[in-house]
Amino acid sequence: MFFKSDNTAAVAPRILDAVARAGAGYATPYGGDDLTAACEARVREVFEHPDARVFLVATGTAANALSLACLCPPWATVFCHAEAHVSVDECAAPEFFTGGAKLTLLPGRDAKIEPGALARAVAATGTKGVHGVQKGALSLSQATELGAAYTAEEIAALAGIAHGAGMKVHMDGTRFANTVAHLGASPAELSWKAGVDVLCLGATKNGAIASEAVVLFDPEMAWEFELRRKRGGHLFSKMRFVAAQMDAYLTDGLWLDLAGQANAMAARLRAGIDAAEGARVTNEPGANMLFAEITLGAHRRLTAAGAQYYPWPEGQAEDGPDDAPLSIRLVTSFQTTEADVDAFLDALAG
Amino acid sequence: MFFKSDNTAAVAPRILDAVARAGAGYATPYGGDDLTAACEARVREVFEHPDARVFLVATGTAANALSLACLCPPWATVFCHAEAHVSVDECAAPEFFTGGAKLTLLPGRDAKIEPGALARAVAATGTKGVHGVQKGALSLSQATELGAAYTAEEIAALAGIAHGAGMKVHMDGTRFANTVAHLGASPAELSWKAGVDVLCLGATKNGAIASEAVVLFDPEMAWEFELRRKRGGHLFSKMRFVAAQMDAYLTDGLWLDLAGQANAMAARLRAGIDAAEGARVTNEPGANMLFAEITLGAHRRLTAAGAQYYPWPEGQAEDGPDDAPLSIRLVTSFQTTEADVDAFLDALAG
Amino acid sequence: MFFKSDNTAAVAPRILDAVARAGAGYATPYGGDDLTAACEARVREVFEHPDARVFLVATGTAANALSLACLCPPWATVFCHAEAHVSVDECAAPEFFTGGAKLTLLPGRDAKIEPGALARAVAATGTKGVHGVQKGALSLSQATELGAAYTAEEIAALAGIAHGAGMKVHMDGTRFANTVAHLGASPAELSWKAGVDVLCLGATKNGAIASEAVVLFDPEMAWEFELRRKRGGHLFSKMRFVAAQMDAYLTDGLWLDLAGQANAMAARLRAGIDAAEGARVTNEPGANMLFAEITLGAHRRLTAAGAQYYPWPEGQAEDGPDDAPLSIRLVTSFQTTEADVDAFLDALAG
Amino acid sequence: MFFKSDNTAAVAPRILDAVARAGAGYATPYGGDDLTAACEARVREVFEHPDARVFLVATGTAANALSLACLCPPWATVFCHAEAHVSVDECAAPEFFTGGAKLTLLPGRDAKIEPGALARAVAATGTKGVHGVQKGALSLSQATELGAAYTAEEIAALAGIAHGAGMKVHMDGTRFANTVAHLGASPAELSWKAGVDVLCLGATKNGAIASEAVVLFDPEMAWEFELRRKRGGHLFSKMRFVAAQMDAYLTDGLWLDLAGQANAMAARLRAGIDAAEGARVTNEPGANMLFAEITLGAHRRLTAAGAQYYPWPEGQAEDGPDDAPLSIRLVTSFQTTEADVDAFLDALAG
Repeated sequence: MFFKSDNTAAVAPRILDAVARAGAGYATPYGGDDLTAACEARVREVFEHPDARVFLVATGTAANALSLACLCPPWATVFCHAEAHVSVDECAAPEFFTGGAKLTLLPGRDAKIEPGALARAVAATGTKGVHGVQKGALSLSQATELGAAYTAEEIAALAGIAHGAGMKVHMDGTRFANTVAHLGASPAELSWKAGVDVLCLGATKNGAIASEAVVLFDPEMAWEFELRRKRGGHLFSKMRFVAAQMDAYLTDGLWLDLAGQANAMAARLRAGIDAAEGARVTNEPGANMLFAEITLGAHRRLTAAGAQYYPWPEGQAEDGPDDAPLSIRLVTSFQTTEADVDAFLDALAG
Repeated sequence: MFFKSDNTAAVAPRILDAVARAGAGYATPYGGDDLTAACEARVREVFEHPDARVFLVATGTAANALSLACLCPPWATVFCHAEAHVSVDECAAPEFFTGGAKLTLLPGRDAKIEPGALARAVAATGTKGVHGVQKGALSLSQATELGAAYTAEEIAALAGIAHGAGMKVHMDGTRFANTVAHLGASPAELSWKAGVDVLCLGATKNGAIASEAVVLFDPEMAWEFELRRKRGGHLFSKMRFVAAQMDAYLTDGLWLDLAGQANAMAARLRAGIDAAEGARVTNEPGANMLFAEITLGAHRRLTAAGAQYYPWPEGQAEDGPDDAPLSIRLVTSFQTTEADVDAFLDALAG
Repeated sequence: MFFKSDNTAAVAPRILDAVARAGAGYATPYGGDDLTAACEARVREVFEHPDARVFLVATGTAANALSLACLCPPWATVFCHAEAHVSVDECAAPEFFTGGAKLTLLPGRDAKIEPGALARAVAATGTKGVHGVQKGALSLSQATELGAAYTAEEIAALAGIAHGAGMKVHMDGTRFANTVAHLGASPAELSWKAGVDVLCLGATKNGAIASEAVVLFDPEMAWEFELRRKRGGHLFSKMRFVAAQMDAYLTDGLWLDLAGQANAMAARLRAGIDAAEGARVTNEPGANMLFAEITLGAHRRLTAAGAQYYPWPEGQAEDGPDDAPLSIRLVTSFQTTEADVDAFLDALAG
Repeated sequence: MFFKSDNTAAVAPRILDAVARAGAGYATPYGGDDLTAACEARVREVFEHPDARVFLVATGTAANALSLACLCPPWATVFCHAEAHVSVDECAAPEFFTGGAKLTLLPGRDAKIEPGALARAVAATGTKGVHGVQKGALSLSQATELGAAYTAEEIAALAGIAHGAGMKVHMDGTRFANTVAHLGASPAELSWKAGVDVLCLGATKNGAIASEAVVLFDPEMAWEFELRRKRGGHLFSKMRFVAAQMDAYLTDGLWLDLAGQANAMAARLRAGIDAAEGARVTNEPGANMLFAEITLGAHRRLTAAGAQYYPWPEGQAEDGPDDAPLSIRLVTSFQTTEADVDAFLDALAG
């Protein structure tokens, strides 16, 4: 019953096999190998964009921070949700890689940026000449940190505001696969066709060891990205092993199968929680993350039964009476089974 | 009728004289001269702190950003008010000089940080291990950007929270003189005795050409500050001219005389505005800045009469009916005369 | 006949097996897992240092740049050889991670820093007060970029100069294993016992996929290192897979077996080259890298036979007569076979 | 007998008068005032370039570092002489402001870059793909740190190499006035007509308090420069006082009169030293700096007589016999008199 995060899961067998197969023989280092080229071609195919440039790194923080550094000069600001990973979970990596840019934090339910709030914040930025920071970039998280998915229309609306202000759009796609599986839209529809300029496509949390593809739909940024990647220490000499993961991930729909399983288990959890007495799901899930309110009594039963998850937000009192409420976060993964979910729901029901 | 900012004012004659007198003969460069030493001694005397180290720069942004860089590592955050100059008026200078730290923006009336908000924000920082930024420093503006003054007790309460969390306290004292004059407390009481570790003591907006003293009440930081000042391009070769300004400023109470005049003119304005029909002062002034609500009709009369000031916040509609409200900011300076104020009030009254 | 670099080689089977085994089940992310703990324990054991702290990253550039950032403030300089990887092959990563420190480039045969040159450079640094950069850190490459190995005594002599000047010592140990195997000294003797404060222990070029251990012999630096690693985007969520590589690498002497094979093949090459007419080895090899002078005629034969290696330095004319000289670099790896070497030597002999 | 540096001198009376005159009345801050506009117009006129953009700062380090940050991205290198102020006297300010770029240090007599050395260094840069830094900018010092002046032809030759490689040319013109006065060429001929893209025109060392004009002959860089200046803390609120200095400096040829006096005194010193027994000038002066070899005996006589200057390079033994040689640096200024020079020469002669 591991629901703390999808990054506690292991590796999908087909991805591990691909890594093993990549290990034979010699290969040109630093991404000059055939597997890396094949991986780039596959990303282009999956995203129906023949000119996209693809660069692999191994962590989501690296993907996000390097991308934002290419999009936002040091004297500008990145518009993002107040709950965004780039704001709260990267120890100021965007500030570091951009050379000291700012983040402008925006509100919105389920960690989705509210378009009106974005429009107002953009309009209020860059109005003070050199005294304030300038308009830099828009960063969207798909899925959001509260488990929601932006529809293509929602992305387009936000991207339109950004583009209208001369900014590019970055998407933190750590759980992009889950939203594609959830929404049933195509990868292209949820990215460049909706106005995304740079997508950080995660695989790590959905079955890979460590592989994230930065997809530049504007190939003009490629050389700067490559230089930033290198001096950030993120250029792998044996790139083929990072490429093998991403290539296998995107082959024969594996990525969507893995995400589909995680999503299905989240849906099963959701139905069970909503059916349980004294418990309810509090977000509108668009991926593999649920936020729920349960009772402390249920929390005690779940913990005793071995369920692992986070109270969310942190810092809630856990020593109250059995009927006191507790908010929690539950994340499923490709590895989650129906048995895991049912065991959780059994313990919840008591 | 110049009420846009105190930085539109000229130079106090005694400060200009001091600069002229400093210009004769040869002197050791880079602060090794007698005037710079005398200036440091004078600051120590005025602040009753024999161990303080004093470093001169020429802009408030430089003073603030260099100070914060010494207090807050790149992986930490500076707690400040959402209206703070370091946040909204320095084009990300703190982020640049710290190497990519963050600012945590806090609420509070009249741009004074509300202690409970600080305590909650501090408690919520550094709870995520390496994933989030750490506790860095507290930055207070005295006077605040909305013209209020922190009392010694208020400073001590906020500094206590910071020190209790292992942080140092920075004070942006661009208008420190005005608050000393307003509160009648001693410079020491409003700085180190209340827990301020680094004070950026402004003179520029109160009669100098360009001179700001960074006062380190903890002399251990001195060498790092000096190196940061140099590589920031803020070490003047002919330092004596910067020192001459600050020295004259602090001699025979000139700084408080100048601030007192500005404050008195603000008080005169305040009384007149509050007495006028359809106008009222909206902040609780503790220095030389007023925020007021007037009517668009009054605004048109004032503008026609040559009054200069800023609508505040920016972006308000100015094309409405005569009785529509408009919020404005008024800043007095040592140069403001009773005639200036009365002319303003006459135009306001119509 | 792949002699371009050891990073063109594949993965040692036992390392790949360890990665596969690490893939089952759930694990705490970000290095909180059992394998990462076991890996740290193993490094401590191999280095006979119970207090060392060990942090894993995936590239040598990351390991070096993060380490130097902890050792050298932005206003100081890193003393290194002019040929050092940190100077010529990392696209200014050290400058980026340190926040703008300098490198002071030193001479010395076979890319080993000449102690007198270091002493003179150190003595000439920090003599200008704030105007020049301060003494920061010493960085040694073991093996050097020209394939030489520092003996324990040589390291101690250089480290003594650094420590005497208040600096810490960083070792870029990308090919540390090869030098241990070559010199027959213990890992401890070639690192902390000789004065190394931070060792970047490479595995990637010696049989791993991507795994480098930063070994802090001074555990006080650990927290800062962790924060810098995170905000540099170098903290892996599924750390167990990086740890599995390093752990297997150091288990049962695998790392020295792999390095020993590479070294033996380099020695076989060396003997053959020196025995060949018109060819000679020009460096004093202490690891798995040879530098040799051959003729253009031999170069043409080798190329025709499929041998892959780099002319070194780059930019030499390759269109001269058959008896014109050409300097080349040859790197062996754990994967190099006697057949590879003999085929090379046959083609060389013509 | 003050020959340590021209920055020990005071302020030229006409510049001080201009500052005093600038002090009356109100003015728009941050460079929006009439004097700043007039100053920009005057620079354009003096340099015969109607499109140049002019930005004022108060230190040479700020002028240089901000300029280089606009010209050289973080992943590139600035080509400069090994003795350049930007390399040895700015505590890594260029590295800080560029975000971690490198400097490539070049040789050449009298601190003038040798064109062949530049061409070779440029050709060797950027040949390693992303692994090495890219070609960034060329930085020339006029006069050089060893007192030489580049002729227009020499500048053009070096600038041609830079432009041919896609780089822009920065000139550190701390003592630009002295070289104009020495060479008799026009300001335009020694700057943009010879290929200089950004000139940092110093006034501080030639009679101002603190005023340096960054002249952008390519106006496209202006906005970026303004933003960098602000976030560097180098935007003065009371800009008119910085502008007043530069404006007076360039009015009616004052700058060349002041430089001419300094140069003439250097020439008088030079003639006297070369005529003295046991002394000789060792550089080819093109400005107001002499480097000379004297005897320790002469050094003792000069010191006893109150002459102030630096042994150069630092660190020479000063306790040898009277006939042992000592290398020294002598800098004259607008304030140096014939009496100063003659007193020096008398003491030298003994």
